[in-house]
Amino acid sequence: IRIGIIGAGRIGKIHADNLLRLQQAEVVAVSDLFAGPELEEWAVARGIQSIMKDSGAIIANPDIDAVFICASTDTHVPLIKQAALAGKHIFCEKPISMDIRQTEEAVEAARQAGVMLQIGFNRRFDHNFKRIREHVQSGTIGEPHVIKITSRDPNPPHPDYIKVSGGIFMDMMIHDFDMARYVSGSEIEEVYAQGNVLINPVFAEYGDVDTAIVTLKFENGALGVIDNSRQAAYGYDQRMEVFGSKGNVAVANDHPNTAEISTAAGVYKDNPLHFFLERYNEAYIEETQLFIDCILNGKPVPVDGQDGLQAERTALAAKLSMRLKRPVKVSEVLQLAEQYSAFL
Amino acid sequence: IRIGIIGAGRIGKIHADNLLRLQQAEVVAVSDLFAGPELEEWAVARGIQSIMKDSGAIIANPDIDAVFICASTDTHVPLIKQAALAGKHIFCEKPISMDIRQTEEAVEAARQAGVMLQIGFNRRFDHNFKRIREHVQSGTIGEPHVIKITSRDPNPPHPDYIKVSGGIFMDMMIHDFDMARYVSGSEIEEVYAQGNVLINPVFAEYGDVDTAIVTLKFENGALGVIDNSRQAAYGYDQRMEVFGSKGNVAVANDHPNTAEISTAAGVYKDNPLHFFLERYNEAYIEETQLFIDCILNGKPVPVDGQDGLQAERTALAAKLSMRLKRPVKVSEVLQLAEQYSAFL
Amino acid sequence: IRIGIIGAGRIGKIHADNLLRLQQAEVVAVSDLFAGPELEEWAVARGIQSIMKDSGAIIANPDIDAVFICASTDTHVPLIKQAALAGKHIFCEKPISMDIRQTEEAVEAARQAGVMLQIGFNRRFDHNFKRIREHVQSGTIGEPHVIKITSRDPNPPHPDYIKVSGGIFMDMMIHDFDMARYVSGSEIEEVYAQGNVLINPVFAEYGDVDTAIVTLKFENGALGVIDNSRQAAYGYDQRMEVFGSKGNVAVANDHPNTAEISTAAGVYKDNPLHFFLERYNEAYIEETQLFIDCILNGKPVPVDGQDGLQAERTALAAKLSMRLKRPVKVSEVLQLAEQYSAFL
Amino acid sequence: IRIGIIGAGRIGKIHADNLLRLQQAEVVAVSDLFAGPELEEWAVARGIQSIMKDSGAIIANPDIDAVFICASTDTHVPLIKQAALAGKHIFCEKPISMDIRQTEEAVEAARQAGVMLQIGFNRRFDHNFKRIREHVQSGTIGEPHVIKITSRDPNPPHPDYIKVSGGIFMDMMIHDFDMARYVSGSEIEEVYAQGNVLINPVFAEYGDVDTAIVTLKFENGALGVIDNSRQAAYGYDQRMEVFGSKGNVAVANDHPNTAEISTAAGVYKDNPLHFFLERYNEAYIEETQLFIDCILNGKPVPVDGQDGLQAERTALAAKLSMRLKRPVKVSEVLQLAEQYSAFL
Repeated sequence: IRIGIIGAGRIGKIHADNLLRLQQAEVVAVSDLFAGPELEEWAVARGIQSIMKDSGAIIANPDIDAVFICASTDTHVPLIKQAALAGKHIFCEKPISMDIRQTEEAVEAARQAGVMLQIGFNRRFDHNFKRIREHVQSGTIGEPHVIKITSRDPNPPHPDYIKVSGGIFMDMMIHDFDMARYVSGSEIEEVYAQGNVLINPVFAEYGDVDTAIVTLKFENGALGVIDNSRQAAYGYDQRMEVFGSKGNVAVANDHPNTAEISTAAGVYKDNPLHFFLERYNEAYIEETQLFIDCILNGKPVPVDGQDGLQAERTALAAKLSMRLKRPVKVSEVLQLAEQYSAFL
Repeated sequence: IRIGIIGAGRIGKIHADNLLRLQQAEVVAVSDLFAGPELEEWAVARGIQSIMKDSGAIIANPDIDAVFICASTDTHVPLIKQAALAGKHIFCEKPISMDIRQTEEAVEAARQAGVMLQIGFNRRFDHNFKRIREHVQSGTIGEPHVIKITSRDPNPPHPDYIKVSGGIFMDMMIHDFDMARYVSGSEIEEVYAQGNVLINPVFAEYGDVDTAIVTLKFENGALGVIDNSRQAAYGYDQRMEVFGSKGNVAVANDHPNTAEISTAAGVYKDNPLHFFLERYNEAYIEETQLFIDCILNGKPVPVDGQDGLQAERTALAAKLSMRLKRPVKVSEVLQLAEQYSAFL
Repeated sequence: IRIGIIGAGRIGKIHADNLLRLQQAEVVAVSDLFAGPELEEWAVARGIQSIMKDSGAIIANPDIDAVFICASTDTHVPLIKQAALAGKHIFCEKPISMDIRQTEEAVEAARQAGVMLQIGFNRRFDHNFKRIREHVQSGTIGEPHVIKITSRDPNPPHPDYIKVSGGIFMDMMIHDFDMARYVSGSEIEEVYAQGNVLINPVFAEYGDVDTAIVTLKFENGALGVIDNSRQAAYGYDQRMEVFGSKGNVAVANDHPNTAEISTAAGVYKDNPLHFFLERYNEAYIEETQLFIDCILNGKPVPVDGQDGLQAERTALAAKLSMRLKRPVKVSEVLQLAEQYSAFL
Repeated sequence: IRIGIIGAGRIGKIHADNLLRLQQAEVVAVSDLFAGPELEEWAVARGIQSIMKDSGAIIANPDIDAVFICASTDTHVPLIKQAALAGKHIFCEKPISMDIRQTEEAVEAARQAGVMLQIGFNRRFDHNFKRIREHVQSGTIGEPHVIKITSRDPNPPHPDYIKVSGGIFMDMMIHDFDMARYVSGSEIEEVYAQGNVLINPVFAEYGDVDTAIVTLKFENGALGVIDNSRQAAYGYDQRMEVFGSKGNVAVANDHPNTAEISTAAGVYKDNPLHFFLERYNEAYIEETQLFIDCILNGKPVPVDGQDGLQAERTALAAKLSMRLKRPVKVSEVLQLAEQYSAFL
């Protein structure tokens, strides 16, 4: 499989490196708006021959079988449409877009073109979260009753990014909405969102919050709650549990080692793995492998456009809920989004 | 201090036994509606001389300094008023009543009589939860941002009890509302409650739920969430965490031992301490000791009538929120309770 | 059962307090060489009527059914003999003596008198170690192959005590030798001991060590190792594991709470329960209850004279091994002790 | 750096794969006595061009800068000597040989030739054990007093391997002897070894044991103990702790995930990572990277010939100790080995 990477920021480079380790994939071109000597050097060291600023040449290249869309979110929809038209399989980072209608169009475009579209919900491939899902699916904990997810970042993003991030629900909690669907095996029906600015007033400037709690009602009757914070002093906090009729399955954070030091001051251990690159390293590798594997073997991708769409709808419902100060059904987001468009 | 116990069910007997271990307290009388040979035998073995059916004689007894009100909830308010008039210090189990107005009257009666009134929120004296509060108060974790409480019972109560329990919020989550105030050091301003019947349809028959999640907004801006279940297959689940600007403090369950068994089937340990009697054994002892100590030394009790009242207001707000499907402010419960009285 | 306590130091007082909580036991007299106003006050507060300096009056008192021998080790043998002659059941602290021959005589005296003799190996009643034994006996871990015990004190004893302690093996590790027999269900056949003075040179002054490792060979072929330290900066360290053909069972320390605090500096928790009074509180209660229960129901005591004797033989073997720099069989200690008497 | 791999068994292939990921290394040739179509296929998939049966061509190849000696132990010494003469840097698996004199010659040959010789003690690069060493070196736990190492394999090796393995001390515990030196920062002065056949009588047939405990005396006065088992039902058990004057640092096993499942049957988690390939995956990568880095930058290798030699001497001392049933000094092994050569 010959691959073109569109957008060579942090995440684009990770995908490239992971693809380079696969026997059946080859990275043949990389495009980035800010391509320059530094990126050239990076590409040369990896044997990637074609570096360019314009993504158009990648999409136009008949030798390329699949593209990884890792550019800024506002470019995703047009790129998906173009790539689909060009018959290329597509791996796209989350979210597809911040506008549900547009996301729907992009997903539809890929469907009509008959190309694969995988969304970058990397956490589905995390060893801990997969183990939760396995236990839920195998019935170890019975029927799920309560799903709880904690997700806290070590540091808030740069203010420039906050401005265009789409807000905490679309940018950060969207991962957790996908996780909630993934581990529960049920769709989210309704959300109620609360948020506050407790870390940095800059979030308020952009109409965003830095701390949020969202409760969930699932179609199968289960309840859920997600809490997010943009800044945890001790690092990246990624925990989850599913409580059911026969038991509970909970995952704790991963730590860089298991050392426990006991002194007169108490017993301590090192903080969790620093951030997503460390924590989800293996998950990034696996999602890439699976994407290639699905293309090669004509299997459905593990995270498809509908998954991306559903997470976005839920994020929008949370945003509306926080603004309207009432629970919001996922099914009513489109209508509410129009009604309160000035508000969002 | 000479004590009379009113109501010799499970909890009344625990308080009696704990009082018997104190040098400065003496249990002189016990009343119970169902007093009989069994209770006689129990009392004789403990050297308690006076057993009766009617609580009136205890309240009328001038030799008694303080009473423990452990009878059914509907008797609490009249008993508090009578005991207050008789000048006796009062330890009353939670909740004081299920009617906020009546609770207010009872608290006021104790205040006017100048007697001490301590409410049985035993979890305030638990070694784990006290440690959380100490770390919050000492500033270890900075300003609290998110308070999370999980509270699950090993088994649902008997249907007869469910009927008169006041519902999951007033009967069970009331402890967690008190904990939320206790560990956060802030008042709860608003709640949003969700509940469902996932364990046993009998809860629905009484307009109750067996699974609930309530989100909290605190006056200091912090957010919170409590999840309750009436039945956890693995036993009593009592966990809590407070996340703040400088860190997180979390407590896990207590287990009967630290043994970890590794076999080909995996690594396992015994389930948590079975239920509240095992888990809060030491907390029950300490709340009793402190009550006696406060009487002897004229100190304010550690959990007073206002604490009882505030927890009840919050429980009522949760009940209303679930019914009205919208967030409810604690400050509006009285008005809403009147408006929706047919509803509750 | 009417009890006399001989020796009202720290451990004698603990036994007295635990006996006072039992319905079927009564502490009627306490003797202590240093009895004075302080002890009088202590006894009065507990309703113990008879306080004296001389233990003789306790043994001579026909109303006393059983004695707790908690005086210094050198008094144990004569007191056991006298109490046995007087037909009293005996609870004796460990070790019975530091001279195996004398211990044998004392055990024999109790046997001939037909009185019960229980030795104060309190750790047999610890919730963690009992759980290990249960798993070994039930076959969960198969045939035991390796027994590992770690036992470290928070602080070394006072030099005055070190001098008369009998050395680390007889004073401290004797508990672990008993534990090794208890959890493995097999007799110790041979030991090899190493020790060093790493904490305080005062140990060397008395021919003692403060750090020791002893390996064990059991009759059933299992191997074992015990490590002791007189001073752990983080407090009392009491861990154990048994590895067998089907698995491993390990117990960790008990902590005063389960709080885990995460800050930028790492994740920490409080140190283990401080020392034996905190850690073995419940075990002390249980050993006392069982002793009373055995007297009342004519059952054999859970830790008898042979148990005391066997632990002492093993401690002596360890002492000899360290001196002779070679493995020593428990069966050869008497002969070696005579041969190297000047050495011990 | 152009590399030749000598011996393409399991460990040789791992090194090859890890080298393939490095930018600055190239695997140009692989030799294996049993080279055939399967190995050809393996090599082709990795772009390794030269496959052969005879290691001679690798050593004779002037284009090769360094060799990885991963063939059977009996070939190590001649291969090291040949490679040293040919001026190639050498990475050699442990042990160098089972004959100390020969190992000395090989180490000397490399020294005289001025080539680097790194020994494959991969555990030095494990994240857990490195953290122990860091804490010991930084003084967190003060002066080391007691070093404890547990090392248990999930399954015993094949009988054919047992026969030529050199025995449990030279084959398995040699890693732990190296770890003891590594984490303590002190040399082992004396050992006392005990062993038994508890798992499979086949070990006895070859004069070997399957379960062993060795106590250590270090030059700095610290004591230590290592326990080994050839078969742990629950998998690979790799734990370690160093106790010192200011505290203790302990590492637990790594698990494939952090999931904790609570059901009516108890709380369980998955067994540790299966075996050395899973557990030490990252360590293997790091030792390879460092070897290449040392060659490129002329830095001394992190585990040199003296390290290999010292571990072998200690293993031999343990073997002698078990046979002679007495403690053995590492300094006396050569003399004893001659004296008891018939015995070994």
